[in-house]
Amino acid sequence: MESIRAHVAAHLAEHLALLDRLVRHPSVAAQGRGLEETASEVETQFRQAGAARVERLRLDGAPPALLAEFPGRSDRTLLFYNHYDVQPPEPLWEWTVPPFELTARDGRLYGRGVADNKGDLVSRLAALRALRETAGGLPCRALFLVEGEEEVGSVHFGGYVRAATDRLRAGGCVWEYGERDPHERLHVIAGVKGICYVELEVEATARDLHSMWGALVDGAATRLIWALAGLRGADGRILIPGFYDAVRPPRPEALEAADRAPLDDAQLRLQAGTDRLIEGRSGRAAVRAYLFEPTCTICGIDAGYTGAGMKTVLPRRARAKIDFRLVPDQDPEEIVGRLRAHLDRTGLRGYTLRLFGGERAFQTDLRDPFVRLVMDAVREATGRELVLMPTSPGTGPMHDLGGPLGLPILSLGAGYWGCNAHAPDEHIRLADFQETVVMLAHLLDRFAR
Amino acid sequence: MESIRAHVAAHLAEHLALLDRLVRHPSVAAQGRGLEETASEVETQFRQAGAARVERLRLDGAPPALLAEFPGRSDRTLLFYNHYDVQPPEPLWEWTVPPFELTARDGRLYGRGVADNKGDLVSRLAALRALRETAGGLPCRALFLVEGEEEVGSVHFGGYVRAATDRLRAGGCVWEYGERDPHERLHVIAGVKGICYVELEVEATARDLHSMWGALVDGAATRLIWALAGLRGADGRILIPGFYDAVRPPRPEALEAADRAPLDDAQLRLQAGTDRLIEGRSGRAAVRAYLFEPTCTICGIDAGYTGAGMKTVLPRRARAKIDFRLVPDQDPEEIVGRLRAHLDRTGLRGYTLRLFGGERAFQTDLRDPFVRLVMDAVREATGRELVLMPTSPGTGPMHDLGGPLGLPILSLGAGYWGCNAHAPDEHIRLADFQETVVMLAHLLDRFAR
Repeated sequence: MESIRAHVAAHLAEHLALLDRLVRHPSVAAQGRGLEETASEVETQFRQAGAARVERLRLDGAPPALLAEFPGRSDRTLLFYNHYDVQPPEPLWEWTVPPFELTARDGRLYGRGVADNKGDLVSRLAALRALRETAGGLPCRALFLVEGEEEVGSVHFGGYVRAATDRLRAGGCVWEYGERDPHERLHVIAGVKGICYVELEVEATARDLHSMWGALVDGAATRLIWALAGLRGADGRILIPGFYDAVRPPRPEALEAADRAPLDDAQLRLQAGTDRLIEGRSGRAAVRAYLFEPTCTICGIDAGYTGAGMKTVLPRRARAKIDFRLVPDQDPEEIVGRLRAHLDRTGLRGYTLRLFGGERAFQTDLRDPFVRLVMDAVREATGRELVLMPTSPGTGPMHDLGGPLGLPILSLGAGYWGCNAHAPDEHIRLADFQETVVMLAHLLDRFAR
Repeated sequence: MESIRAHVAAHLAEHLALLDRLVRHPSVAAQGRGLEETASEVETQFRQAGAARVERLRLDGAPPALLAEFPGRSDRTLLFYNHYDVQPPEPLWEWTVPPFELTARDGRLYGRGVADNKGDLVSRLAALRALRETAGGLPCRALFLVEGEEEVGSVHFGGYVRAATDRLRAGGCVWEYGERDPHERLHVIAGVKGICYVELEVEATARDLHSMWGALVDGAATRLIWALAGLRGADGRILIPGFYDAVRPPRPEALEAADRAPLDDAQLRLQAGTDRLIEGRSGRAAVRAYLFEPTCTICGIDAGYTGAGMKTVLPRRARAKIDFRLVPDQDPEEIVGRLRAHLDRTGLRGYTLRLFGGERAFQTDLRDPFVRLVMDAVREATGRELVLMPTSPGTGPMHDLGGPLGLPILSLGAGYWGCNAHAPDEHIRLADFQETVVMLAHLLDRFAR
């Protein structure tokens, strides 16, 4: 491992130059910006890293996905999942650095997508290069599947997996990201929640009205608000009838892992930057809710006049974006159906409901030998205390991959708790980046045996 | 009246030239444009119309108000209220004529402020001139109080009235505007609702969070929505405790006038462009609610991500603009206090409440002899069917004037139902303008006796 460590240190400027090239592509999937160009940049970096084959997968209406193959000495195959798209940079004025270039400052690397997850992709390529240049080649075969729609719900990822199933056989999969918590423990994450992200639009009148009509007309904003207010109780319980019908309770090992995880409500409050959690969700219940409960979150609302001062208007139209996080075995399409039935039952009229992103939850069976192997390799490489999280509270298209391929999937990478993923001043720490390269190289080595 | 009619027709081009001079001043109060210059133009027109005295009133931070006095043969005084400011012209691309010049087309006069209410001011000066030139002078004394902040809530109007109380004594007041309805009935309006326009902002967390935190954190949008949803019931009833405490029920004459008014829920639905009114507000109840019920209207909401596609964010901050229309004797400051107490009781934390505009409601006592006098004069002068509206559902600073001076106030003028006040292609009809001059001259004559 020392030779790897030395190699990373010696070539750090080159790795950061590659990361800078990726960050400079504003690959905002939500806005359809720069996706083809970023895919080309990733392809170039794969080839420069020694890929034997890079396949550009295409499906109508989707940015390309890339499948890269790196030969190795053993016949074992480790699959890596990444994505080259990023979140929108807004609000721009809250950034202290330009979002679309790499800025190194005080031992940190800033830029949109650095933590989620262009930094991880570059750390993986750096590990391959270090192994090749210090050991003469890779100990096992490595595959990369990289998509460009993760931040908008990976709509076509399942299709890409289906189109390439025969080239995706592997003994295990390393997912996109990882985290160091405030106590510097490294988290290995064995699952994700699903998602059902919808836009609800209400149109109440033929045109905007003078607000004096408020004595007779509800208006779109009020109707929308009533609909939204009835979706969830103050205790966090979602009030849509049938919402919980498909929920499968967590397996005993998953619950045990959650209870063993050094997470508590004090730390969760700290991370969330609030002293108030949803009522009843304290102590172990907070941790279990965070990992195993579905959610209903309003991500955005927009209606009427929102500029300075006053405008006396009764808006014709109002819109909300709602994010449901799902748990096994909830199905996003079914949730949309139940939401629609619920809205109809409450008498809401003139509404449109659009599903923007739907993914199912996934949890790797913690009894799979791959789990033990990865934990051991990571512990050896980093010397860190490890935390095995049975699932993330976040989402990714793990089910699309792990479901059809029957693969164990674990996520680990370069991030830390304060990295502002999805927020202004997104960053990772330089030392974490270097550690991650060493850790990945060691994992490839252990996995090959 | 025939001599007046002939005089107006003979001098129409001169009246329209005066109106054009006013319209060319873009006196948009919301943008602070051209207010001093417009006040000077009004002062000039007052002097040219034969004012014995024009006083330019000044308060810090406010555009000037003008007080003009025209002597007359009797010792009776009729007070006119107008404003020289206008609404912003935006959206400009929806105008078919230049907003800031007078365009005569197909018997209509177009321009920003023509209907609200520069056309009314010029019609009043035209009536004074016609009386002077056909009858050798005014039959009674006329006063004009003209402000420049009506379209932004008349913030300083009460102060101007207080500063000039001793010069404002009068036997009655003619308010700024009037309306001919789709059946060509002329409306005389005896009151206005008040307003309490607030902005409610909720801040829930130190920063925007990834929406996976939705299992533990409510977020600003959800807290705001719960607060807003609890302000009003589906039956239109406002749920803030004490909200109705100060409400004085309409006087029997006001209710009778409302029931006599040729307004029904079918026509109201047509005007509002919706087939659904608030539940229980149909038939006469709709008309009564429109005129006599306070309202709670959400004019705007803004939280989190509102762009295209999806962003999975739990917004730190959410904001709403809320318009309460008030009835006698509700007080805007008191309503803000009750709203604050209500929000505190529901446990809402981290909120800011700002009052943007506050005015009290006003209703003239319909038993006042001034009401009968005005109705008779208007009927004689126009031959039209009249509608006496006990109040408008809209707002204006009538209480600032009618309250301290104990004045009966009635609004009548040159407008009609299709005049696009506050909207692109604002206009009045040329025939209505001429009719209004005759009607005002006759009213001055009748009032003098």
